[in-house]
Amino acid sequence: MDIEDWRRMIDEIDAQLVELLNRRSRCAIEIGKLKRAQNLPVYSPEREREVLERVRRLNRGPLDDEALRRLFERIIDESRRLERLAAERADGFSERAREERP
Amino acid sequence: MDIEDWRRMIDEIDAQLVELLNRRSRCAIEIGKLKRAQNLPVYSPEREREVLERVRRLNRGPLDDEALRRLFERIIDESRRLERLAAERADGFSERAREERP
Repeated sequence: MDIEDWRRMIDEIDAQLVELLNRRSRCAIEIGKLKRAQNLPVYSPEREREVLERVRRLNRGPLDDEALRRLFERIIDESRRLERLAAERADGFSERAREERP
Repeated sequence: MDIEDWRRMIDEIDAQLVELLNRRSRCAIEIGKLKRAQNLPVYSPEREREVLERVRRLNRGPLDDEALRRLFERIIDESRRLERLAAERADGFSERAREERP
């Protein structure tokens, strides 16, 4: 296989990554709505640690654990951002007010 | 569905992401070896732009284009890092020998 063959394989993988990352985002948005309905904070450090620990256990390489952690920190950041948007969109003002008065 | 159900769905997606990200890394490593054999530079800005443009076209949301770009910039960074390591490792012994006997 030459460089172009491997690049075509990467293109196929990327198409699946785009689909999965968007699917994950839809889950995050649903969680954001539920958290708002139940008056729960968007930021959940324990759950985020759990996600990172879980993917570390699943890792068989060649990505090293640190690289995988950097990737999932970005993935979690973007999910948290969408969760927050979903929670705020449902109820802009009072959500912000709650965060300001813990 | 409650928050725990959505989190279980995220866990399943994450397992697939770990697998795909590692599969992508294996492709990057092969490309790194081929680039070294052909004396090509690891950094290929045109190809990186092409990857970003391609995933932007594939994006159907809910991730916005900027979020997807941030995610793929991280993915490309980690792939480039592995490519570079693979290109260097192919030439590992003489590299190390140089380091040990400066």
